[in-house]
Amino acid sequence: MGRVTQRRKIHKFVLDGSPQALEHPVRFKEDVLAVEEPLEIRLGEMSFAVTMRTPGDDFDLVAGFLVSEGIISEPGQLVSERFCAGEDEDGVQTFNVVDAQLRPDVERPATGRNVYTSSSCGICGTDSIEAVRKSSRHSPKEDPLTVPVRVLADLPDKLREAQAVFSKTGGVHAAGLFKIHDDGTSELLCLREDVGRHNAVDKVVGWALRSGRLPLTGTVLQVSGRASFELVQKAAMAGIPVLSAVSAPSSLAADLADESGITLVGFSRGHSLNAYAGRWRIREEDLAPSVA
Amino acid sequence: MGRVTQRRKIHKFVLDGSPQALEHPVRFKEDVLAVEEPLEIRLGEMSFAVTMRTPGDDFDLVAGFLVSEGIISEPGQLVSERFCAGEDEDGVQTFNVVDAQLRPDVERPATGRNVYTSSSCGICGTDSIEAVRKSSRHSPKEDPLTVPVRVLADLPDKLREAQAVFSKTGGVHAAGLFKIHDDGTSELLCLREDVGRHNAVDKVVGWALRSGRLPLTGTVLQVSGRASFELVQKAAMAGIPVLSAVSAPSSLAADLADESGITLVGFSRGHSLNAYAGRWRIREEDLAPSVA
Repeated sequence: MGRVTQRRKIHKFVLDGSPQALEHPVRFKEDVLAVEEPLEIRLGEMSFAVTMRTPGDDFDLVAGFLVSEGIISEPGQLVSERFCAGEDEDGVQTFNVVDAQLRPDVERPATGRNVYTSSSCGICGTDSIEAVRKSSRHSPKEDPLTVPVRVLADLPDKLREAQAVFSKTGGVHAAGLFKIHDDGTSELLCLREDVGRHNAVDKVVGWALRSGRLPLTGTVLQVSGRASFELVQKAAMAGIPVLSAVSAPSSLAADLADESGITLVGFSRGHSLNAYAGRWRIREEDLAPSVA
Repeated sequence: MGRVTQRRKIHKFVLDGSPQALEHPVRFKEDVLAVEEPLEIRLGEMSFAVTMRTPGDDFDLVAGFLVSEGIISEPGQLVSERFCAGEDEDGVQTFNVVDAQLRPDVERPATGRNVYTSSSCGICGTDSIEAVRKSSRHSPKEDPLTVPVRVLADLPDKLREAQAVFSKTGGVHAAGLFKIHDDGTSELLCLREDVGRHNAVDKVVGWALRSGRLPLTGTVLQVSGRASFELVQKAAMAGIPVLSAVSAPSSLAADLADESGITLVGFSRGHSLNAYAGRWRIREEDLAPSVA
């Protein structure tokens, strides 16, 4: 269906000190993002689960999910799978709802998990974004924060240094919340680690709530891995204006950042970084030579 | 609480061709793993969610989770948090159940997600393992498969090569299912990619179910990232005897692998790899010089 990757215009900031980079520190270019879209799994009439996934092999995904959950273990127990035939409000078949029919003797789970209450057949990324917009009480959109690009590019190293102090394993994710001061310098407010990326961010947000610091205006959340929809959602709910990831963002992460007014940075590698949304918050004046 | 990391005896296989490695290709050493344990979040009497996390900052985690879910947005809405005072069957306080008391005017969610049905206060890693044991119809324990260590060490490269064929982004996880033939060679049966690690594995397992190939005896599942409890669970449910990860496993992943009879490989980097469980399946005879 050609929905595995999505092309997107981004701003790439190059800080390697080369003559080219000094002349053109910001490049407007195209990047290819992995697509992330919600998939609703239904068992007959019951909405069983919603998972964020890359479209493609969806019948395999649903079948494997049912095996992993212990609901089925042989092919005969899965009578059929089909995409929900309905359409969303715009008349588009989203291919984001799979209905699995189980053999009558297969024991159904009592309740679903993470289910949407809508009975629409057309759940899509836009619905997911809308759900965040509706439930968020803070709007990063109005946060006037801007950050010098060099300060932003230094955050992954700062995070790793701070992590080295109390991390003994190579197996944890980190999330660091940095305050950006008026003079443009950064200060680490809170660092949390966890085997789960989302948990590390929840720990930071929970620390902020309990310290009476929400919404987190004027801050950057630097994370060690990739940026999924879920991480941007957490940033939006906490009013964080900048989310920076060491690795790639997904398509829906970039879309949600756009909608929420969040600056989304990816592939932040010290000598370069990409802006996927909210590029206006990134200041590069200290890189370019002054133009007469 | 000192539960953030766990020491564990592992077998490290070194394949770099050095004289030391040729003489002692397998080293019995200690490694430090990030701890993964279930945390049950309760809202008063209602079990709201269970998440796998690294213990520590649990009140922050619960508070942040409630913010991310849109249930609370200011500190006054969270009246108190406490660890459930009960104990598990062995009389141990697990510190794995947090009860959050919300201000009466805060709207509660209608239903919980991923909840356990037990009302015990002592949920712990052992319960999670027991739940997998009870629901799994296949036992990787009885699979007599053994794999030459060099074949195992080559799988991450094979996975990356196959991925390069259809991947255009740096942002996706991959899971590759390899059949190990009687002559010790490997063959890629199925490769799936996704923004979600667990989805990539579910897609492979679903493909196997739909092809009538479950249980997946005689195979190795190679994944691109880390090995969490959830991935070992999926391997166990599908009867996969060997799970190999490029990065680190968690403590509970290693425990579940041990209990399920799964060989768990981590830090598989071409020139070396670590066995965290089921070391007996890894054959190193082609590395050591013959001993008279």
